[in-house]
Amino acid sequence: MQVAVLQLNQISNMKISMIGAGNVAWHLSIALEDHHHQVCEVYSRKQTKARALVSMLYQAKVKTDLDFSESAADIFIMAVSDDAIAEVCSMLVLPENAILVHTSGTKSLEDLQNLMNTHHDLPIRCGVFYPLMTFSIQKKMSLKDVPFCIEAEESTAEDKLVQLAQSVSNTVYIINSQERKVLHVAAVFACNFTNHLLALAKEITTEENLEFDLLKPLIRETFQKALVADHPADVQTGPAIRGDKSTINKHLVYLNNHPDLFEIYEVMSDSIKKWHS
Amino acid sequence: MQVAVLQLNQISNMKISMIGAGNVAWHLSIALEDHHHQVCEVYSRKQTKARALVSMLYQAKVKTDLDFSESAADIFIMAVSDDAIAEVCSMLVLPENAILVHTSGTKSLEDLQNLMNTHHDLPIRCGVFYPLMTFSIQKKMSLKDVPFCIEAEESTAEDKLVQLAQSVSNTVYIINSQERKVLHVAAVFACNFTNHLLALAKEITTEENLEFDLLKPLIRETFQKALVADHPADVQTGPAIRGDKSTINKHLVYLNNHPDLFEIYEVMSDSIKKWHS
Repeated sequence: MQVAVLQLNQISNMKISMIGAGNVAWHLSIALEDHHHQVCEVYSRKQTKARALVSMLYQAKVKTDLDFSESAADIFIMAVSDDAIAEVCSMLVLPENAILVHTSGTKSLEDLQNLMNTHHDLPIRCGVFYPLMTFSIQKKMSLKDVPFCIEAEESTAEDKLVQLAQSVSNTVYIINSQERKVLHVAAVFACNFTNHLLALAKEITTEENLEFDLLKPLIRETFQKALVADHPADVQTGPAIRGDKSTINKHLVYLNNHPDLFEIYEVMSDSIKKWHS
Repeated sequence: MQVAVLQLNQISNMKISMIGAGNVAWHLSIALEDHHHQVCEVYSRKQTKARALVSMLYQAKVKTDLDFSESAADIFIMAVSDDAIAEVCSMLVLPENAILVHTSGTKSLEDLQNLMNTHHDLPIRCGVFYPLMTFSIQKKMSLKDVPFCIEAEESTAEDKLVQLAQSVSNTVYIINSQERKVLHVAAVFACNFTNHLLALAKEITTEENLEFDLLKPLIRETFQKALVADHPADVQTGPAIRGDKSTINKHLVYLNNHPDLFEIYEVMSDSIKKWHS
C-alpha cells in the first residue's frame, strides 16, 4: 500500500545513528542530511569505512562500539549485510523504546524482533526501512524516485519511519515481510540477473573482437519498450518466441564450448517458449 | 569494422523492392523513403500486409508474385523470417546483376549465394543488410542510432549497401557472417532474455498483488549503470555475487512451486557465482 504524502508541517527533523558504512548506509546518510536530518554517529566493523562516511557528513562522529545507551538518536538504522544482522543485534545496546530498523529485502520483521528479544530486556521498537534500489558507492544519486518499503510493529514507530522515508522519497509503501521478500525475489530477476546477461553478452562480443557498443542501442530500446508496455511479455521478440528452431540450433552449436552459456540459452529459450505457448 | 561516413555528394537515391511486410520491412521502408529513396514495390505472402505497408509509402505498388524480371529497382531487400528465405529464393526471378540482400542475423552470405546459384542462371550480387535492433510495428522510430551490419561478395555491391545504410544510420559496419552470428547470439542474451526476465519479474509481483511499478526505478538504474560501466560485471549486485546463501535459499524455497522460475534462479545464480569467483 502506497502511503499518501504527509503535509510538510508534519515532518520534523530527526536524529539518526547509522550502523554500517556500506553502499546503503552511505546513500541513506547523505540523502537524510540533504533533507535536514542529522546523522549523529556511524558505526562500522571496519573503522576506516566509518571514518570515510563520517568525513562526508556534517556533525557525525565515528562510533567504535555498539553501546548506544547514551545516544541522542531517534532512529537506529542497521544497514549491514543480512548475515551480519544477528551478530550486530547480539552486541547492540539501545536506549529504552528506541526505534531500530534494518534495510534488508529478505529478513522478516519477526526475525529482528526475536533477535532483539533474545538479547535485551528493555523494550525496543523494531521496523524495516528498505529502499528498493541498487546502490554503488561511487555514484551519488537522488532517492526521490526510490521506493521505500516500510514496516513496523507499532504505529507511532511506523509513522516516524514513513515521515523519514517521505522526506527523501516520493514513493513510500507500507509493505509486510512476505510482500517485501517477494519484491526482493522479483528484483533479483529484474536487476541482478538482467545485469549478468548484459555481462555475458559483453563477453560473447569481446571474444570475437566485436565492440559491445554495437549492442547498446538495442539494449536501450529493449528496456524502454519493456517499461512502457502493459506487460514486458507483450514486446518479447527473438528466435524462441518465433519458434525459429534453426536459429536456436545454430546458436546452441556456437555455444557448445561454453557450457554455462549453453545452459542459460537453453533454460531461457525453453521458458520463453513455455510462457508464450 | 565501422565504415567512415561517406560524403553527402556520393549518396544517390536508390530504388528498392521490399520482399516481406513484417516489422523489419515496415521500419526499413519508411526510413528509406524518409531519406529520399524510393520503394517501388512490396511483396508479401499475405497480401493484406503488403497493402498495409504500401498505404504508408509514396508510390510503392503491391507485388503479388516473385517475378521481378521487369523491376526498376537497384536493390532487392528480402526482409522475411529465416525459415522463409529458402522458399522465397526458389521462386525469385531477378534482373541480371541485381543486388539481393537478406536482413537476417544468423543466415550466412554463403547460404544465400548457394540458394540463388541453385535456382538461377543469371548472375546475382548477394549481400546482407542487417539492422541490429528490435522492431515493433506499432512504434515508429528513427534508425539514426541503429547499427547496420553490411556484407557483400562484390565490392561495388558493398559500396552501394553501405551508402544505403549510411543514408539512414550513423553507425554502419562491415561485418562478416561469423561475426554477425555472434552478434546475434549476444543480442539474444542482452535483449530477448533480459526482456523475458522482466516479464517474469512482473508475474512474480502480480501474483502477490504488488505493483510492477515499484521495480521500475530499479530496472532503469540497473540498465543505466550497466551501459556506462566499463563492464556490466563491474556493477553486478545481489545475493549471488555476495555469496549470501541464506537469502538465496529463502528465495529458492519461495520459488519451489514455480519449477521454471526455480531453475532460472539456480542457473543464473550459479553462473554469477562462477563468473565472479
